[in-house]
Amino acid sequence: MDPKTASNLSFILNKPHDVEFKSRDLPTLSDPHDVLVAINYTGICGSDVHYWTHGAIGHYVVKEPMVLGHESAGTIVEVGSAVTTLRPGDRVALEPGYPCRRCGPCLSGKYNLCPEMRFAATPPYHGTLTGFWVSPADFCYKLPESVTLQEGALVEPLAVAVHIVRQAVVTPGQSVVVMGAGPVGLLCAAVARAFGASTVVSVDIVESKLAFAKSFCSTHTYSSQRIPAPENASNIRALAPNLAGGADVVIDASGAEPSIQTSLHVVRTGGTYVQGGMGRDEITFPIMAMCLKEVTAKGSFRYGSGDYKLAVELVASGRVDVRKLISGVVDFEDAEQAFEKVKEGEVIKILIAGPNEKKE
Amino acid sequence: MDPKTASNLSFILNKPHDVEFKSRDLPTLSDPHDVLVAINYTGICGSDVHYWTHGAIGHYVVKEPMVLGHESAGTIVEVGSAVTTLRPGDRVALEPGYPCRRCGPCLSGKYNLCPEMRFAATPPYHGTLTGFWVSPADFCYKLPESVTLQEGALVEPLAVAVHIVRQAVVTPGQSVVVMGAGPVGLLCAAVARAFGASTVVSVDIVESKLAFAKSFCSTHTYSSQRIPAPENASNIRALAPNLAGGADVVIDASGAEPSIQTSLHVVRTGGTYVQGGMGRDEITFPIMAMCLKEVTAKGSFRYGSGDYKLAVELVASGRVDVRKLISGVVDFEDAEQAFEKVKEGEVIKILIAGPNEKKE
Amino acid sequence: MDPKTASNLSFILNKPHDVEFKSRDLPTLSDPHDVLVAINYTGICGSDVHYWTHGAIGHYVVKEPMVLGHESAGTIVEVGSAVTTLRPGDRVALEPGYPCRRCGPCLSGKYNLCPEMRFAATPPYHGTLTGFWVSPADFCYKLPESVTLQEGALVEPLAVAVHIVRQAVVTPGQSVVVMGAGPVGLLCAAVARAFGASTVVSVDIVESKLAFAKSFCSTHTYSSQRIPAPENASNIRALAPNLAGGADVVIDASGAEPSIQTSLHVVRTGGTYVQGGMGRDEITFPIMAMCLKEVTAKGSFRYGSGDYKLAVELVASGRVDVRKLISGVVDFEDAEQAFEKVKEGEVIKILIAGPNEKKE
Amino acid sequence: MDPKTASNLSFILNKPHDVEFKSRDLPTLSDPHDVLVAINYTGICGSDVHYWTHGAIGHYVVKEPMVLGHESAGTIVEVGSAVTTLRPGDRVALEPGYPCRRCGPCLSGKYNLCPEMRFAATPPYHGTLTGFWVSPADFCYKLPESVTLQEGALVEPLAVAVHIVRQAVVTPGQSVVVMGAGPVGLLCAAVARAFGASTVVSVDIVESKLAFAKSFCSTHTYSSQRIPAPENASNIRALAPNLAGGADVVIDASGAEPSIQTSLHVVRTGGTYVQGGMGRDEITFPIMAMCLKEVTAKGSFRYGSGDYKLAVELVASGRVDVRKLISGVVDFEDAEQAFEKVKEGEVIKILIAGPNEKKE
Repeated sequence: MDPKTASNLSFILNKPHDVEFKSRDLPTLSDPHDVLVAINYTGICGSDVHYWTHGAIGHYVVKEPMVLGHESAGTIVEVGSAVTTLRPGDRVALEPGYPCRRCGPCLSGKYNLCPEMRFAATPPYHGTLTGFWVSPADFCYKLPESVTLQEGALVEPLAVAVHIVRQAVVTPGQSVVVMGAGPVGLLCAAVARAFGASTVVSVDIVESKLAFAKSFCSTHTYSSQRIPAPENASNIRALAPNLAGGADVVIDASGAEPSIQTSLHVVRTGGTYVQGGMGRDEITFPIMAMCLKEVTAKGSFRYGSGDYKLAVELVASGRVDVRKLISGVVDFEDAEQAFEKVKEGEVIKILIAGPNEKKE
Repeated sequence: MDPKTASNLSFILNKPHDVEFKSRDLPTLSDPHDVLVAINYTGICGSDVHYWTHGAIGHYVVKEPMVLGHESAGTIVEVGSAVTTLRPGDRVALEPGYPCRRCGPCLSGKYNLCPEMRFAATPPYHGTLTGFWVSPADFCYKLPESVTLQEGALVEPLAVAVHIVRQAVVTPGQSVVVMGAGPVGLLCAAVARAFGASTVVSVDIVESKLAFAKSFCSTHTYSSQRIPAPENASNIRALAPNLAGGADVVIDASGAEPSIQTSLHVVRTGGTYVQGGMGRDEITFPIMAMCLKEVTAKGSFRYGSGDYKLAVELVASGRVDVRKLISGVVDFEDAEQAFEKVKEGEVIKILIAGPNEKKE
Repeated sequence: MDPKTASNLSFILNKPHDVEFKSRDLPTLSDPHDVLVAINYTGICGSDVHYWTHGAIGHYVVKEPMVLGHESAGTIVEVGSAVTTLRPGDRVALEPGYPCRRCGPCLSGKYNLCPEMRFAATPPYHGTLTGFWVSPADFCYKLPESVTLQEGALVEPLAVAVHIVRQAVVTPGQSVVVMGAGPVGLLCAAVARAFGASTVVSVDIVESKLAFAKSFCSTHTYSSQRIPAPENASNIRALAPNLAGGADVVIDASGAEPSIQTSLHVVRTGGTYVQGGMGRDEITFPIMAMCLKEVTAKGSFRYGSGDYKLAVELVASGRVDVRKLISGVVDFEDAEQAFEKVKEGEVIKILIAGPNEKKE
Repeated sequence: MDPKTASNLSFILNKPHDVEFKSRDLPTLSDPHDVLVAINYTGICGSDVHYWTHGAIGHYVVKEPMVLGHESAGTIVEVGSAVTTLRPGDRVALEPGYPCRRCGPCLSGKYNLCPEMRFAATPPYHGTLTGFWVSPADFCYKLPESVTLQEGALVEPLAVAVHIVRQAVVTPGQSVVVMGAGPVGLLCAAVARAFGASTVVSVDIVESKLAFAKSFCSTHTYSSQRIPAPENASNIRALAPNLAGGADVVIDASGAEPSIQTSLHVVRTGGTYVQGGMGRDEITFPIMAMCLKEVTAKGSFRYGSGDYKLAVELVASGRVDVRKLISGVVDFEDAEQAFEKVKEGEVIKILIAGPNEKKE
């Protein structure tokens, strides 16, 4: 593809519920370590939908028109003079946040915690629902031949799940409970299985999601009820022998207060609980359960060193079959309808083809 | 001392506020790994006072008369046939909880999490405010000559602090904030200093406690105000340059809701917070601060492998001067008055002499 | 089975190459936590053969007649009064070393390093090639219905491999090289795969072993040549893209000097090498490769907390198919012939039926 | 100081024992994150002397004339447009190796293992024995007022020791043996003490070095004898009660074969040994001691994330008094005589003043 003659049409959020398609100037390579990528497919994340509907997430506020999207795979069209690991034609998954490489977190291997992070579609930075994208070469991950570009767009949410499961230090033989069976919760359950967990319970309030979880990866499911958290926890513990003493690991991928409360009651003494889902700033929390059981609780934020690489490997080896999560693919011009479907909860993961992608 | 002619007078809680002194039968050695210890000094813990006033802590309920006390040092009077490491006359600090040695937590080095733990003065097990005590030899820690028996009685709360600071993985050069300047909070601050923390802030609402903390070990103090937690956190961050980005480690030794909330706001991105103090089962908790900053939060419960050994070493080397915490020593017969003083908050740590201890 | 009327025939080593079959008194339960087990199957380990041929391993010298064998599965016939987790008829894998439960290593979760360890068939302790065996209940691991007693006898070498792979901290996506394709090397390769390693190379000098490794679990094999270690390492690095920079983990399960040298050259900068195989006390070792590449090198000795439990789970879940390693089963009376076959290297793993086992 | 009128005289190695002083062009800032530093003091390292005498270390060969020196402190004279943390006049310790910031080791927090590292006075990169030096701002560490520039030049070898002690994960109360009492060995002993080690033994063959070690930081010393390694180890174990079972940590800062052998025999079962000193590529190594005792052995290479920062803090807090190591300071023009003295072993650490430093 010749970028000079191709489209750089972009899907831009002006303000809540006010989007437009606009062709922007083709970006150019200014750093010799950068590459130019033609975007092939982009998934929609809950955060994209949240900006679209609310114009802000916490203190990140959309003040200027912003290109949406950050779950993308693309094809290299040009490489900077210092790039040795990629060449035009390579198909890549794009890690969409670029740290400063110079602060304490960056130098200590925690670049996801960089305070200077420039993250796609997080104000004031544009996102990837566009024709062409510039990225540092080391944040592009080459897809093996066996992995399609559509699967490549799923690497982003899979990397979120990989980071969560790594924060939880899941090891073979463990019992893992995952609260929430949305895309990230499903991927956490699948990654936990790939890490060797022998029991993986998916918990949700939507039966159809649990049915999918069972077919996708989970060994058990539990339909959360409107009962006190200790009772939901007790029901989950009854599901399998190695849950009787509590789960080795609990991952909350929901952000919902009742789920977090259940998490603390279902985790075993000495176990680990990771908060992966976003929700209200403050909740009622069973702090003494954490204290007296010596639970290790951790937050998980985006992804960092090694997560994308492992995510690609999990797809390539077939250990996580992300294709099952793709509910459909729409043309670039139909991006807003795709956002609508995600908002309505009708789909697991919908992909938007890049503006230069041939219509299917 | 000949135990056969000595007193085994015990300080017994019948029900809330109803105590009595009673001489019980001399205990005998049934296991060849056990030793018989004459109790010299015993400190009073908040939990002792809580049983005395309420008759219960959580689901631990005093149903039968129970000997109080568990912070003791004593002198070996007899050793079992399999004991090779101790002999009569040795002065020891007593670790007062005996695990089963056979469960998963015990075999994996986490015996403080043993579900079969028999812990002194936790119902239904008697405590150490008595004349003689039987202990497995490996739960008695010989005091070097330089350490007095009164200091030996302080090893228990010091071991609590050692366990908390170890849970927090404090390393040299770090900044540490300790919420609460009661005995355990003070000892956490002192242990953090001994672990090489370069900045240690003690936080409390009582000015006199902060003044003591400053003279004892802390590099800074902060008088907590009735303002939102983020504001208290912001004030603490302003105290020193290496707190500006947040504290590397925050320890809550108070159990109070506002302190815990402040903890989560004052800890840095990627930092560690340990809940050491006990309080209400549930509180309003800034869960997103934990999630988005990728905080590692941990509970801390009693003490485990290596904690007592290190506590004795910290006293012996002079790195933690526990003598400064001893507000006074009372005769055994005055035990209830000592409880009264602790309840009133008039003292930091008061010791009760054993019933065979010569009056001073 | 009624132990009073059953055989307690034992296979006893008097001195090198001098064995006899002798019926010994039925053991009895003296500790309420113990169980009595009828032995069903026992595998032969290289150490058993070494005692048989040499009468000693290092400073462990057979001075009195000693029952051989320690890789056994059996059936519970009687339980002590304090045992709640097992009952007669339960089929179990036997962990054959009993630590003191009271020393520093035991209390800190490293019981395999207990200096008071009583290990089966390590002088002066008898082994399990006998009719009945007494074990603490917590060192017997119940086999799920899906696991046979013959598989149960393979849990011991599998636990050795689990311990090695855990020492190596193998995580998903890694590249692992295993030097040696004997039983333990094969099981290390299989466990590494179960832990999610994406590339596992088995290295040996016997082509037939490599062929078996390939069919059993390894993604690649390498036939070690009589060339300098750096050249063998270079050849191994050429096998796969994620070996080009060196292997993330190298396990030596051979104990052979050239293999250990190759290990240090094939491991990547910052990687991990674990010495699992026994061999000569001293070798020529590329120490600067370890230093300058900041390699983490570890020893591995037997198995410890959680290893047996995970080994049983790996068999039960089908992730490690130990049946493929069983070359044959012989009657108890043919035990010496089985030793002969192992010594000759004709088999991977041969099992000896217990003296009360019905002939097949 | 105005760099335009100041000297950029440099001390250049042409080939072994052939050095010259030459004024080079003033370096300029090309990257907005860089700063220009006037060099005040530079220490001499064994590697500098090795290049001077041999022209090479391993595969690093001096092919073009190269400025020597890499242990420097200096004063900021100019800052790039993106620098916010430093300003002219700031006095700094210089971390002299600059990683690529883009490779796997860099992104995972192990930048000292970066294969693209540009390290001062390691061919083909020039060193710091010059007038002015350009560094990325984040590799300059501001010295607090209480720290002198001469102490600042000692931060480099102290950071080497910090890295080694961190690799060893020394924790309070431990026993540590340090083989070798040269500058790095002495600093390792001092840092181990600052990390809370209760027993620190310095081992060397030169009595005067041991006497200095005792006065500087070590609790015990041992004069290594020409006897088998296990015997030297046995003698060291006899020095203190908490060495009787072996040392928790052994650091080899000598690189000498007998010292490394002793290290493996003196470390306790389950202990840690770190190879910090450089020496022969291959040695006779007691591999079975490492294997059977489950020793964790690690290499240590230069310094990485957080090491310089902690080193500055250890000097600033007075916990490591590096002034005691400074044997003398010479004018820039006397640099070669200083090299001579280091080679002769007449000094611990000698500093060379920068070419613009006023004569003392």
